[in-house]
Amino acid sequence: MHKLLILSDITSQYQSLIEEAQLLGLVIESTPAPDIDIVLGEPGRIKAALASLPALRWVQSIWAGVEPLLDPASRHDYVLTNARGVFGGLMSEYIFGYLLAHERRIFQRLEDQKNKHWDDSDTGTLRGKTIGLLGVGSIGADVARAAKFFGMNVRGYTWSSETSADVDKYFHGSDLLEFAHGLDYLVNILPNTKDTRKIINADLLNVLPSHALVINVGRGSAVDESALLEALNQNKIAGAVLDVFEKEPLPTDHPFWTTPNLLITFHTAAPSLAEDIVKIFFENYKLFIESKPLKYQVNFEKGY
Amino acid sequence: MHKLLILSDITSQYQSLIEEAQLLGLVIESTPAPDIDIVLGEPGRIKAALASLPALRWVQSIWAGVEPLLDPASRHDYVLTNARGVFGGLMSEYIFGYLLAHERRIFQRLEDQKNKHWDDSDTGTLRGKTIGLLGVGSIGADVARAAKFFGMNVRGYTWSSETSADVDKYFHGSDLLEFAHGLDYLVNILPNTKDTRKIINADLLNVLPSHALVINVGRGSAVDESALLEALNQNKIAGAVLDVFEKEPLPTDHPFWTTPNLLITFHTAAPSLAEDIVKIFFENYKLFIESKPLKYQVNFEKGY
Repeated sequence: MHKLLILSDITSQYQSLIEEAQLLGLVIESTPAPDIDIVLGEPGRIKAALASLPALRWVQSIWAGVEPLLDPASRHDYVLTNARGVFGGLMSEYIFGYLLAHERRIFQRLEDQKNKHWDDSDTGTLRGKTIGLLGVGSIGADVARAAKFFGMNVRGYTWSSETSADVDKYFHGSDLLEFAHGLDYLVNILPNTKDTRKIINADLLNVLPSHALVINVGRGSAVDESALLEALNQNKIAGAVLDVFEKEPLPTDHPFWTTPNLLITFHTAAPSLAEDIVKIFFENYKLFIESKPLKYQVNFEKGY
Repeated sequence: MHKLLILSDITSQYQSLIEEAQLLGLVIESTPAPDIDIVLGEPGRIKAALASLPALRWVQSIWAGVEPLLDPASRHDYVLTNARGVFGGLMSEYIFGYLLAHERRIFQRLEDQKNKHWDDSDTGTLRGKTIGLLGVGSIGADVARAAKFFGMNVRGYTWSSETSADVDKYFHGSDLLEFAHGLDYLVNILPNTKDTRKIINADLLNVLPSHALVINVGRGSAVDESALLEALNQNKIAGAVLDVFEKEPLPTDHPFWTTPNLLITFHTAAPSLAEDIVKIFFENYKLFIESKPLKYQVNFEKGY
């Protein structure tokens, strides 16, 4: 018999979906206990509970990001799996929502409406524009597919893999500035690792055209915040859309709240939907009881 | 030798694109003259010039809508072709820009930013939502394809054709209310004909769920404006996005400017881009000099 603890903002939603599935040999517990061997939930909550879970063997994170659990001071004597493969469509919705808002001047149109100004000048189009993806894993591949759907040129910057056929040209390692040169849109989807820290820095921002838009849906650590502020304040780029930050929630005195041409959202680009996450859990639970390797295992060293 | 007159806001742009192509036996004239046989341009401008073009044989409209030229009091002794096949992608960009802005609460996020309010509650997603297309011609088929790309269910209402495989279910004639029942999104793409006048009326709006969004990118005449105002003011639907109106430009005293949950744009959903339109003109010119039937001919009676 396996015992599962759920640690989430929406525990009851997960509980009913899992109960419905009537998984073989699984009991759901409502509080930490010495015999619990499986935990499903948010990394921060799980970290706080680790000390009271001596029998823990497997943690399924409901998020992609698992930073709290990577802490070297924390226990790593269990299998950690994260959520993958379900965020690409949601990320694409977010990214293309903002790309289209930018090209089709959706915010400007609202201002025009408020001013009763019939402005029938033409807007731009995504077709023929060039998007550069920092990171082309499973999410990046979905974003590349959406970019192709809208008739865009797609560049991808990765450390190794060249798996998406929707990327027109791949760049690696020291090609970073060449990758960025002339982009209409730069989108960061990289996870937080030592190689990705401040990858969007002054050097990179300097080679972007002044009409470029920067979008960060990866991790806040990827952006050199003061370099981005300078680029925006000096109109070196047209704008930025940030969903993730060095510190979250973003402190109220942070200049990002009020920087011109900067739109911020609240780490909400790709919500973890319980109906998506339980499918990963069901699949992994089957592998777990069969003592097979689980899907989407996180390497505590590499961080992904 | 054929003589072409260009009548557009951006005549010089068309002129250089056409000159570049060095079409056989074609001379571009800069003013109306008795021997001009071809006109390319905007329907309103062309209508005004008809009396001074006795040798006119072919008019290529740079827009899809050709209402001014359909006027029964106007000459119909020439072949009228309009622009088609180039607006689907642009219309899709517009429609999905606003659908995504709605689902992902893009305007609300901006308000949150202004208020320094970190609202990390989940937004909606297009995946699994149902869109209903009034009209599934070439533009509708492109919109259906985009809807499928985003994982939506697609209903189509047409008079006859069932040509798009991206429509899950077709409705016809008296099925209109059944078509509309339960839609998350209702999008009108119909041309202006006697059958489409006020097709979006109180009966149709009444069967939509209260969370539904109505988008009109077809013709203003398709909407019963007072019924839509009532539906919005009484929160019978969640909102509307209108690009076209009974009277354009929209008069400054029209209530649409200030109706809550109504976004308006300025007949700008699908701009006619000169580089797209000249391709149609080149193809039709070749057919014209070979005395073959032209593409995209408009029937003056039917109006499309």
